[in-house]
Amino acid sequence: MEIAGIFPALTTPYYQDGSVAPDLLAKNIARYNRAGLSGYVVLGSTGESVMLSSSEGEALLTAAKEAAAPGKLLIAGTGAESTAATIAKTKRAAELGYAVALVKTPYYYKPAYKAETFIRHYRAVADASPIPVLLYSVPIFTGVTLDTREILSLSEHPNIIGIKDSSGVIQRVVEVASQARPPFKVLTGGAAVLYPALVAGAKGAILALASALPERCVAVYESWKSGRHAEALSQQQELAQASKIIVTEAGIGGLKYAMDARGYNGGVPRLPLPSPSDAKKQEIHRLVTELEHVAATV
Amino acid sequence: MEIAGIFPALTTPYYQDGSVAPDLLAKNIARYNRAGLSGYVVLGSTGESVMLSSSEGEALLTAAKEAAAPGKLLIAGTGAESTAATIAKTKRAAELGYAVALVKTPYYYKPAYKAETFIRHYRAVADASPIPVLLYSVPIFTGVTLDTREILSLSEHPNIIGIKDSSGVIQRVVEVASQARPPFKVLTGGAAVLYPALVAGAKGAILALASALPERCVAVYESWKSGRHAEALSQQQELAQASKIIVTEAGIGGLKYAMDARGYNGGVPRLPLPSPSDAKKQEIHRLVTELEHVAATV
Amino acid sequence: MEIAGIFPALTTPYYQDGSVAPDLLAKNIARYNRAGLSGYVVLGSTGESVMLSSSEGEALLTAAKEAAAPGKLLIAGTGAESTAATIAKTKRAAELGYAVALVKTPYYYKPAYKAETFIRHYRAVADASPIPVLLYSVPIFTGVTLDTREILSLSEHPNIIGIKDSSGVIQRVVEVASQARPPFKVLTGGAAVLYPALVAGAKGAILALASALPERCVAVYESWKSGRHAEALSQQQELAQASKIIVTEAGIGGLKYAMDARGYNGGVPRLPLPSPSDAKKQEIHRLVTELEHVAATV
Amino acid sequence: MEIAGIFPALTTPYYQDGSVAPDLLAKNIARYNRAGLSGYVVLGSTGESVMLSSSEGEALLTAAKEAAAPGKLLIAGTGAESTAATIAKTKRAAELGYAVALVKTPYYYKPAYKAETFIRHYRAVADASPIPVLLYSVPIFTGVTLDTREILSLSEHPNIIGIKDSSGVIQRVVEVASQARPPFKVLTGGAAVLYPALVAGAKGAILALASALPERCVAVYESWKSGRHAEALSQQQELAQASKIIVTEAGIGGLKYAMDARGYNGGVPRLPLPSPSDAKKQEIHRLVTELEHVAATV
Repeated sequence: MEIAGIFPALTTPYYQDGSVAPDLLAKNIARYNRAGLSGYVVLGSTGESVMLSSSEGEALLTAAKEAAAPGKLLIAGTGAESTAATIAKTKRAAELGYAVALVKTPYYYKPAYKAETFIRHYRAVADASPIPVLLYSVPIFTGVTLDTREILSLSEHPNIIGIKDSSGVIQRVVEVASQARPPFKVLTGGAAVLYPALVAGAKGAILALASALPERCVAVYESWKSGRHAEALSQQQELAQASKIIVTEAGIGGLKYAMDARGYNGGVPRLPLPSPSDAKKQEIHRLVTELEHVAATV
Repeated sequence: MEIAGIFPALTTPYYQDGSVAPDLLAKNIARYNRAGLSGYVVLGSTGESVMLSSSEGEALLTAAKEAAAPGKLLIAGTGAESTAATIAKTKRAAELGYAVALVKTPYYYKPAYKAETFIRHYRAVADASPIPVLLYSVPIFTGVTLDTREILSLSEHPNIIGIKDSSGVIQRVVEVASQARPPFKVLTGGAAVLYPALVAGAKGAILALASALPERCVAVYESWKSGRHAEALSQQQELAQASKIIVTEAGIGGLKYAMDARGYNGGVPRLPLPSPSDAKKQEIHRLVTELEHVAATV
Repeated sequence: MEIAGIFPALTTPYYQDGSVAPDLLAKNIARYNRAGLSGYVVLGSTGESVMLSSSEGEALLTAAKEAAAPGKLLIAGTGAESTAATIAKTKRAAELGYAVALVKTPYYYKPAYKAETFIRHYRAVADASPIPVLLYSVPIFTGVTLDTREILSLSEHPNIIGIKDSSGVIQRVVEVASQARPPFKVLTGGAAVLYPALVAGAKGAILALASALPERCVAVYESWKSGRHAEALSQQQELAQASKIIVTEAGIGGLKYAMDARGYNGGVPRLPLPSPSDAKKQEIHRLVTELEHVAATV
Repeated sequence: MEIAGIFPALTTPYYQDGSVAPDLLAKNIARYNRAGLSGYVVLGSTGESVMLSSSEGEALLTAAKEAAAPGKLLIAGTGAESTAATIAKTKRAAELGYAVALVKTPYYYKPAYKAETFIRHYRAVADASPIPVLLYSVPIFTGVTLDTREILSLSEHPNIIGIKDSSGVIQRVVEVASQARPPFKVLTGGAAVLYPALVAGAKGAILALASALPERCVAVYESWKSGRHAEALSQQQELAQASKIIVTEAGIGGLKYAMDARGYNGGVPRLPLPSPSDAKKQEIHRLVTELEHVAATV
C-alpha cells in the first residue's frame, strides 16, 4: 500500500438541529473527488470525533465510503482512550471498508503514560487490527507526543505503516524518515510546514486546511514532487498565511466558515467550539477570495 | 446544600473478563459507609470514566446510588467534550438520583478554548441541569486550567455551587475562597495538600487516595475542623507521603493495588493504564500496613 | 543560627542618572528596622542583581550592612552561572559581613543541568563558603526547579541551612519540611501563599512584597506564630490580593511604585523592566492607601 | 552587508588552571579559516558567555578578530539583561572591530517581558549601536521566544539586519523569511534542521556543531545552494544524527570533546557544565571518525 500525497482531514457537517449530516459530507466529497487528493480521513480531530457518538461516527464513515471516488485511500480515525475500545473501533472501520486506521495516542492519564505504555498500546492495536495502522501524534490537542525513539520502535511492526505527526517539529521528520524501517512513512499534519516536511522526508500530509483549500495544498505537493522548489516555497508561504488566519487563529469554526465561503458544506461546529467573529469571517472571506483569484489566473 | 468533608473519587472494579463490576463497587461502598466520608464521587477521573461506555457508566451510577448509606451526598461525573453531551449526561445522573454533577472542563480543542468558552459552556450546563453543578479543573489530565477570574465569574451562577480544583495551587484556593459569591465552595483534589487547602479556605476534598485510605483522609479533615493544627500537620505529612508513593508514582493502578492490600475490591485498570511493578507493589503494601498499624495504635 | 520570620527581598534604588544609590537603600533600611522584620536580603531577584555590575553589587552590600540594625540577619544573593563565580561572590559577601549566602540555581544551560549537576554545584559552593548557604529555587525566572529529592539530598550538607522556595508549590513545603535533616529550614518566596506555607512547615519567608508592605507580611507571620488562625487567614487573603495587584501584575516596577506610595525610595527599575501604566499606578496607590487605613484602625 | 552561509558558534578554550585561553581560540580559528565558513560568532551561548567576565570576553574578542582571515564576517555576542549593559557591550564590540552584534533576548524577568518590552529593548540597542544588530531567540536556554509578529516589527528598523532563530520552529522561518522587510535575513541555530530551514527561506546558520564539524555543515549549505536537494537531504540526515549525539545529548561538554577528537582545542567547559561520560566519549569519538572517513572517501 502506497500512502502519499494530500489527504483532507474532513469536517463533520450538521443539520440545523445539531444532528450529523452524512449526506452533506457526501456532497463535499463529491467535489473533493476532483481536487487531486489521495484519499480522505474521516473522524479525525478536525471531524470533531471527540464530540460524536458511536452511531454518528458510523453514519459518517458509511457516507464517506460511498461518496469517495475509486482509488481514493480511505482512512478512519479510530483512537480511543482504552486499548480495547480502540481495537473495537478499528475492526468496525475495517468492516465498513476503510483501508487504514488512524490511531491517536491515548492521552487522558498522561502522567501514567510512559514510552512503554504507548508502545504496548499500539502493538496490541496493530496485532488485532485487520487493516494497517497509522500512528497519530497531535500534542496541541492531547498534550502528549510520540518521540523519535518510540516511533522508530513501532515502525518495526509489520502492521504499522506510518505516522501522522502534527507536532510541526521538522527535526522529527528528518530523523524518522531516515531511520524508520521501510515502508514506514511520515505524513505531516501541519499545513504551515508542508513543503519543509516534504523536503525533510515526509511523503504527504493529512491537513485540516485541505477541507477548505484542497487545490492549494495539492499544488505545494505537486511542485515539490516535480522538483520545482522555488514555486513550492512561494506556494508554501501563501499556505502558511492561510493556515494561520483560518486554522490557527479560528480553529474548526474558522475552517468551516472558509468551506462555506468556497461553496462546501461547512456550517458551525458543536459547542463549546466557537464560531469566528464577524471581523474574522470577513478576513477569512477576503483571503479565500484572493486565493481563488490567484488560482484562476495561474 | 452543604458540601464539605471528604469524598472519595471511587475507582471502577472490573470482572476478570474486563467488564465492569457494579456489585464489587457496591461492596466497596458498603465498607466506605462506615469511614466518616461525606459522600461519593462516581465516574470521576479516578473511576476511569473516559474508558467507559454510557451503559457501563449508568450501571455504576445505579449500583453506587443503591449502596450508599442515607445522608451520603452523591456526586456524578458528567463532563463531556460537547456542551450537549454534558447536559444529557447531567440530566441522566439527576434521574438516577444524584445530587450534584461534577463537570470537568472540555479540553481537547484547547487552543480554541478561551475564558469565554469555558464560561459559556458551564453556564449552558448549569442552566439546563436539574441538579447543582460542581466545576472541575484537573490540569494534570486535561492540560487546561480554570483560573481565578473564570471561577469567580461562574460562582455568580445560582446553580454552580463550587469547584473541585485538582491543580494543587493553593494560591487559587486563597483567592477563590475569599472572593467567590457564597455559598460557592472550594474542594481540593490534592491529598498532598489537603490540610494547607483547608487552612486556605477549602471546605473539603474529593480524593483518589480516599478510595484506599479513607480514614487517614478523614483524620486530617477532622483535626483541622477541631483546630488541632499540629496533629493535622503531622497527619498531612503522612498523607502526602502516601499520596506520592501510591497515586503520584503509580497512578490508578497503584491506587487499586493499595485498595486490594486493604481488603477493598481494587483490581487492575483498563489498558493502556499500567499496573505497578512487583517492587512498587511491595512498597505500597509495606506503606499501607504501616499506616494501619499507626491507626490501630492511636 | 535561627533563620525564621519575614525578610524583605530589597529593591535597588537608582539616582536620576541610572547609577545605583546605596544611600537611598540605607534610608529604606533605616525605616525597615522598625517593622518587625528578621533581616534583609540584598542582591536577590527583586534587587535586580542580574542587572548590576560587581562593584555596584558590593556598594549595595556595604550600605545595607551599615544600615541594618543589630540583630537583623543579613543575607546576600551570591548565585552566578558558574560554580567558581558563585564561590567568589559568596566569599566576598562573607568578607563584607553577611551571615548567609542565598544561592540561586544555575539555569542558562538548562538542558544540560540534571539533578546531579545541581547537587555537585551546591556541594562545591557549600564546601568553599565561609558562611551558611541557603538554596534558592525560583522557577518563574530561571525555568528550573529544585525538586524534593534534590533538596533533601542537599539538606544533608552541614553548611546548607535551608531553602528559599519561590515555586509557590505547597506540596514541596510539606515534603521538605517534614523530611529534611534538621536544622534545615524552608522559607517561602510567595507572599500569596505565606500563611499556607507556614502551616505546611515553613519557618518564614523572603518576600518582594515586604519591601513595600513589611508590616502586613509580618502580621500574617505573627498571627500564625500565635496560633490565631482565623486572623492569619483573613490577613493572608488581603496579602494575596496585594501580591497579585502589585507584584504579579506589575513586577518590580509595580513594587517600586508601591514603595514610593508608602514613602520609601522606590523609583524605576532598569530597562527593559517596565514601569506601571498610569492606570496601574492609580490602582496600586488606592490599594496601598486602603491597607494603611486598615492598619491604622486596627 | 551580506549575511549568509555557515558560521560556527565558537567555543571558549581554557588553560588547565581554568582561565580563558585566547591563543587556543586563535589556533582553532586558523584552521576554521580553511573550512568554507562565512565568519565567526564569538561570545555566543556556545562560547559560555554567561560564565565569562567582561575582561575575559574582551580578550577572546581580540584574539578572534586577529585570527580571522580577511573576508570572514565577525559577529560578537553582546546581549545582557539590561538595555544599558547591552548597548555598552555592543559599542565595545564595534570598537574591537566586530561587524555585527548578536543580541539575545533579555530573559530573567520573563513574566514582566511582553512583546513591547522586547521591541523597545531592541530598538534602543539598534538606535545606539554603531554596527548592525542580529536578533537572537534561543528559547531552550532563555525560556522566552521572539514570535513572528515581534520579529516582523523589528525587521522595520534599518539597523536590525536579521535574526538567529534557535527555536527549531520551521513555521517561523517560513513566515519571517517571506514577510520581513528586505534585506532582513533569517539564520537558523539548529543543525538538526539546517536544510529544511534553508529550503524554508533561511539564508544561513550559526551552529554550535560547526565548531566540531564545520565541513559537514558547509556541505549541506553548498548542496542546497547548488540545488542538489537529494544530496542535501542525505547530508542533513547525517548532520541531524551528529547534532543529536553530540550537542543535544552531551551539550557544550560533548561538543568540546568532539572538537578534541578532531584535533581542535576543545577541552572541558566551566562547571557546573558537565563533561561527557566515558561511554558517551566513545560514542562521540566513533561518530566523528566515521564522518571523517565518509568525508575522505567522497
